Parts: sequence; C-alpha cells; structure tokens
Amino acid sequence: MPKISNKGAQMPESPIRKLVPYSEIAKKKGNKVYHLNIGQPDIKTPEVAMEAVKNIDIKILEYSHSAGFESYRNKLSQFYKNQGLPINTEDIIITTGGSEALLFAMGSTMDQGDEIIIPEPFYANYNGFSTASGVTVVPVISSIDTGFALPPVAEFEKLITPKTKAILICNPGNPTGYLYSQEEMMQLAALVKKHDLFLIADEVYREFTYDGDIHYSVMNIPGLEENAIMIDSVSKRYSMCGARIGCIVSKNKQLMATAMKFAQARLSPPTFAQIASEAALDTPQSYFDEVISEYRERRDTLITELNKIEGVTVATPKGAFYCIAELPIANADDFAQWLLESYDFNGETVMVAPAAGFYSTPGVGLNQVRIAYVLEKKDLIQAVQILKEAIAVYNAK
Amino acid sequence: MPKISNKGAQMPESPIRKLVPYSEIAKKKGNKVYHLNIGQPDIKTPEVAMEAVKNIDIKILEYSHSAGFESYRNKLSQFYKNQGLPINTEDIIITTGGSEALLFAMGSTMDQGDEIIIPEPFYANYNGFSTASGVTVVPVISSIDTGFALPPVAEFEKLITPKTKAILICNPGNPTGYLYSQEEMMQLAALVKKHDLFLIADEVYREFTYDGDIHYSVMNIPGLEENAIMIDSVSKRYSMCGARIGCIVSKNKQLMATAMKFAQARLSPPTFAQIASEAALDTPQSYFDEVISEYRERRDTLITELNKIEGVTVATPKGAFYCIAELPIANADDFAQWLLESYDFNGETVMVAPAAGFYSTPGVGLNQVRIAYVLEKKDLIQAVQILKEAIAVYNAK
Ligand SMILES: Cc1ncc(COP(=O)(O)O)c(C=O)c1O
Ligand SMILES: Cc1ncc(COP(=O)(O)O)c(C=O)c1O
Repeated sequence: MPKISNKGAQMPESPIRKLVPYSEIAKKKGNKVYHLNIGQPDIKTPEVAMEAVKNIDIKILEYSHSAGFESYRNKLSQFYKNQGLPINTEDIIITTGGSEALLFAMGSTMDQGDEIIIPEPFYANYNGFSTASGVTVVPVISSIDTGFALPPVAEFEKLITPKTKAILICNPGNPTGYLYSQEEMMQLAALVKKHDLFLIADEVYREFTYDGDIHYSVMNIPGLEENAIMIDSVSKRYSMCGARIGCIVSKNKQLMATAMKFAQARLSPPTFAQIASEAALDTPQSYFDEVISEYRERRDTLITELNKIEGVTVATPKGAFYCIAELPIANADDFAQWLLESYDFNGETVMVAPAAGFYSTPGVGLNQVRIAYVLEKKDLIQAVQILKEAIAVYNAK
Repeated sequence: MPKISNKGAQMPESPIRKLVPYSEIAKKKGNKVYHLNIGQPDIKTPEVAMEAVKNIDIKILEYSHSAGFESYRNKLSQFYKNQGLPINTEDIIITTGGSEALLFAMGSTMDQGDEIIIPEPFYANYNGFSTASGVTVVPVISSIDTGFALPPVAEFEKLITPKTKAILICNPGNPTGYLYSQEEMMQLAALVKKHDLFLIADEVYREFTYDGDIHYSVMNIPGLEENAIMIDSVSKRYSMCGARIGCIVSKNKQLMATAMKFAQARLSPPTFAQIASEAALDTPQSYFDEVISEYRERRDTLITELNKIEGVTVATPKGAFYCIAELPIANADDFAQWLLESYDFNGETVMVAPAAGFYSTPGVGLNQVRIAYVLEKKDLIQAVQILKEAIAVYNAK
C-alpha cells in the first residue's frame, strides 16, 4: 500500500473541527448548542454584492486574469487609498481567500526548513499553511497578562537564525483581538529591516476596531516597502466568507513577480466571487457603522458577562471578534468536549474552541478558550450564563 | 533587502503567458490574432448552471463544508456512477479547480525531494505545482512518432527510485490529445502496485473523446483502490473555467483524510461556484452531444488543414482539444514570437504555444507547438492558412 507524505501526516487538524463529532452528539441528544467557537459572522452580506451576482450576464464563464479582474484591482486600489493606504493596482494580486494569499506569501519567501516567527496564540491555520509549505513556525509567546501585547523585541531577536525569513503578525488578532499600536509596528519594522526579513501582516480584520483606536497597517510604515506584505480578505469585511476572495499586497516587485508565478499556476481566482467582491466595494458606510457598533456592543456584553464568572481572566479585545478567556479549569480540551458530550443546562450547551490549538508551544494555553462574538447579544448572555453553570458543575465532578 | 525563496525563483513561468507581451505588440499594430494557444473553450456555459447562480437566495454567504456541499458531493457521486465509475460521496473532496486538487494530491503523497514520474509532454502547470510542493518531476518521454502512446513500462521502471512516490498521467492528454487504452492503464496499474506508488490520473477532459473510444478511468481499475487518485474539474466539461471547481477522488481512506486536512486549512471551496457546479449536473445530454460533435469536427478540420502543410507532422488527437504539431522550423519559441512581433498576413496572425514548455527535459520539442481547437472551424482554417504562409516566409528569411 502506498504511503502518504510525512508532511501530510504532520498537517494539523483544525482545533475547532476536532470537536465537531461531539457537537453532533449534543445535537443528537436534542440539546441546543450556542456556537462560541466559530469565526463565521452572522451578519448579512451587503445586498449590493449579492445583487451583482444575480444580475450577471455571462455566456461563457471564462478564466479571469491570474491576478484577478483588472477592474477589481483598480477599484480595490482606490478603496485602499481612501483608507489612507498607498496601494496601487500593480501592488495587488487577487487570491482565493486570504488563505491562498498566506500560501503565496509563504511560498514566495520561504523554502523547506526555513523559519517564520509568529507571536502566539495565533490563527490556527498558520500551522497548516506552514506545514504545507515545509516551513517551521517559531512561536514567541504573547501573554494574557499583558493583553497579548507585542512581546519585547528582544524576545524576537533571540529567535532569529539564518533560517528566519519572515515575521507574521495578525492585526487585529485572531484569536486575541489585540490591535498593535503604531509604536509596536515601528519596532517590528526596525527589526525586520535590521535582519532583512519580510513582515507579513494578516489584516483581514482591519475594519473591526472598537475604541476609536486607529488600525496601523504594515503598508503605512515609511521605508518598509521592500519588506512589507499585507494579507487581506473580503470574508469578514463583508461577511462573505463563502466567496473565497482575498489578496496579497506588496510594493516589493520581485516578491509580487514571484507570487504571480504561483497565481498563474492555479490559473485564476473565482469569477462569480470577484464580481461580488468588486460590487461589495460600493457597500455604503452605514453598513460598516452598523456592523462595527453591533460588534462593539457584543464585545462589551461578552466581556462584562465573562468578568462576572469567578476565576475567569479575559483580555478585552480591541479588534476583530474574538477573545481569549482563561477559565478556572485545568484542561479546556476536556472541558469543551464534556460541554458537548455530557452537559446541558435546561437542554442547552455551548461550544468553545480550546485555545491550545492556537499555540504551537506544547502545554501552553491549556486552560484557555477562544470565544467568538458572532452571536446576538441575548444569545451571548445566555451562552455565558451556561458556561458559568457548567464550570461549577465540571469542577464539582 | 529580504530575499525571495529558491522555490519561488524556480517556479516556472507559464509557456503561454511568456508570449502575452508579444501578442500585445501584434494587437497594437492592429493585427488580428487567432488564438490557437489557449485552453479556454469558446463554448457556452450551460444555462442551468448560470441560472442557478442568478436565482440564489442567500442572506449570509457562509463558508461551506471544507469538502464542499454535501448535496453537491452526493449528486456528483451519482453522476459518476451513471458514467460507470464506482465513486461514493465520501470518496470526493471538492476543490478550487482541478488545480487545487493536484496540489492536494501532491501535498498528501509527497515530501520535499520526492519524485513524481510524468510522461511528457505534459500540462505545463504540473511543473509549477511540483515546484511549489518541493517535488522533483522525473519525465519519461512519449514520442510524436507513436502518437504519444504510453512509453514502454520498462522506461518507467528504470526511473523508479526509493524517492518515487507517484506516477501522474493526464487522460486524455493536454497537450497531446492522447487517450490511454485499457491495456495501457492496466500496465500502469501493475507497475504502481508492484512499487507501492500512487497513480494520479488527471481526467479533466474525460468526456472529450471522439472516435467512439471509451475513456478508461483510473477509478475503474479493479484492485487499484488504494493507489488510485483521480483529478477532475468542471472547467472544461461545462465550459466553466471561471467557476474554479474541481475535486480530488480516491478510495484510499488515509489519503482522503490527509487531503481533508489541506482542505480544512483553506476553509472551503467557493460557494457561488459550487451552486453553479451542482446545477450543472442537470445539463442535458444534448449539450454534450453538440459540444463533442463540434469539437470532433474542429479536430478533423484542424488535422486535415495541418496535414496540408509540407513538413508538418501531427498526431491525431483522440481526446481533449489540443494537438502537438511538429513544424518545419528550428525553434518554435522564436517562431511564435516572430509571428506576433513581426509577421502578418493581410493584417492577421496566429498565436501558438511553443511545446518546449510542456517538456521538462531540456532541448526536447523545440520544433513543436501546441494548438488548441477552441475556435470555430472557419477560423481554424484561416489560422492554419496563415501558419502555412508564415512558415514559408519565416524559413525564407
Ligand atoms: C486571521 C485570519 N487570517 C486569514 C483567514 C482566512 O480567511 P479567508 O481565507 O476566508 O479569507 C482567517 C479566517 O478566519 C483569519 O481569521
Ligand atoms: C490537464 C489539465 N489539468 C488541470 C487543469 C486545471 O484546470 P482547473 O483548475 O481549471 O480545473 C487544466 C486546465 O487547463 C488542464 O489542462
């Protein structure tokens, strides 16, 4: 019998998917499950995007340009410029989700055995993309005690070897909700310039900031043109995760020419979704105002409720729609499974994502969970209430 | 300045894209260009597929299951069964084009430095996917003199090393149009079983066979369940290249579980395109009958016309919509560029794909071009007429 690859064997399972069989058990028992575990927003996709697809008049659904429609890239460049990001059409390659942009970024900058430094906890699929690319993730721990601020630059510097090719940050962060300050970005910029590294900034949650904080993009750092790579996506911005459209952005010509070869090999990003994404650029500001204020209220509700549970520590997220909460339990994996398999509170339970899957250092974050606030406020309140009861029952076992 | 990866530097440029700047020159001069170089069909996409997308009623465009809609996989399984292929729902993972299926197949079966044997000439992007996966392509030459039949199995066997993990075939072939016989498939099957290799069959042109020949799928080989991987796509079947939907198919459970981890990391295939692809399964047989008969006539026209040119050798394709033609010129790269840059016949010229890009052995196929018959018959006749005149002018230079 032929053997699968070592790489394939090492590909991590998603920390969220692992729990799916247990959520099936909960559902079979007739229990209602509040999904605090997922990153799929419940927000409506802008009508202007859906209408554009419904009104298409295409006879032959052809491959598009490998970098995406030129019209879309032009309009996207203007969109970025309106946000104060100096991004031209030629700095953009449209990808199949931010996911593919991450793969292109890794493939273009790193070879087998090269190292990428990532502050952890981080978006779990960075592990998968790294494994698929043969790249080693070197984590630098950011702590709940400092609200997941940038670890001291000295910590990064200690980890840099001749194999280090890039630093990857997520800003604002999934799963932390942390928003890097301009000062922190400048520190990273100085570091990557000093060591000739790429700074890859995953900014797919850019719009989601809550306290009047300004998002400081990697594309706004003066003099970092050759080092900066931005990852973006329509998934969260317009609640169009199913479109599968994102982009890789850089002013480094050689990097973009290289990413373009990866893009050409896979021919083109999806056409229907490009049509929707181009149209989505006309989404009125009122849509975002509503969405952001809805998320802010949810965040405030969630954090207030969580803080009512004794023994829970939570860092207030400044952006995105996740937070990491430390629970008064020993093992969040076991707890999350138990919640689904064995617990209910009047026929209801909750699904949370154990945070260990967001760390690559073994044994860290074992008592933490990631909670996404993609539910309505009343459901969030109810879900946290259940969590509170559950913790008491679990610890009394 | 940070450096791009070696892998990125080695990523091949598409042999077709290289000529694009020259086609721009031809167009700037006002010359009409007949595109014999592309694999983009001019056939209409089935209305049932486009209508399904126009009639969607979706409020939130969510991620789908990472393996694709269950409804689509069920229906696709039935479609395959109707074609005599024993493929169950769980044997299918929906991918973003056949392109992504090829990446998943390579990633799941091969590590950095492993080898894949591919009869050449082959679909040029196999080079790109191999480079991206860190895999070495080991070509085995199939010759125009035998119409690109399977090279003797002894030739394969000579190339097998401990690093060999798979044999990849394209059936029917792009760029050769060759259709492997049942006997050839059986020989390959015996070989991969003997050496515990995977047999990856890219069958994206499965329906396109012309002389009453039966396509013999890798999924039909008895006892090959653990070794066989099929790559499929809606791109050519329904002339929906822009959808970006394909699939990886195998009965090897471990392989599919591994491919699934790659699929989960990138979250999901595109939703709009899945809706179109699921609906496309209802395309009436009359659509295919018309398309196949159109392609057959085009093929016959093209081959007849090419054979009228002195010094041209062409193997009559049995499937797909390409052929490789050997021209009475020394260097097809130079010729193809000259056709665009410096030649016109009453304001018209042709664009062909130099075949060298479809070989990975250097120096082979230099006097060959790939011609796609995705144009109407009258245009094919005119294009070949131009080619004939051009060869005479070029050789008289
Ligand atoms: C931080 C981060 N980056 C990238 C992605 C990938 O998103 P997509 O491929 O849908 O654009 C996600 C999705 O959840 C994410 O959370
Ligand atoms: C032989 C072969 N395989 C795979 C593909 C990839 O097709 P897609 O990704 O559009 O499904 C193509 C496209 O031309 C092809 O010719």
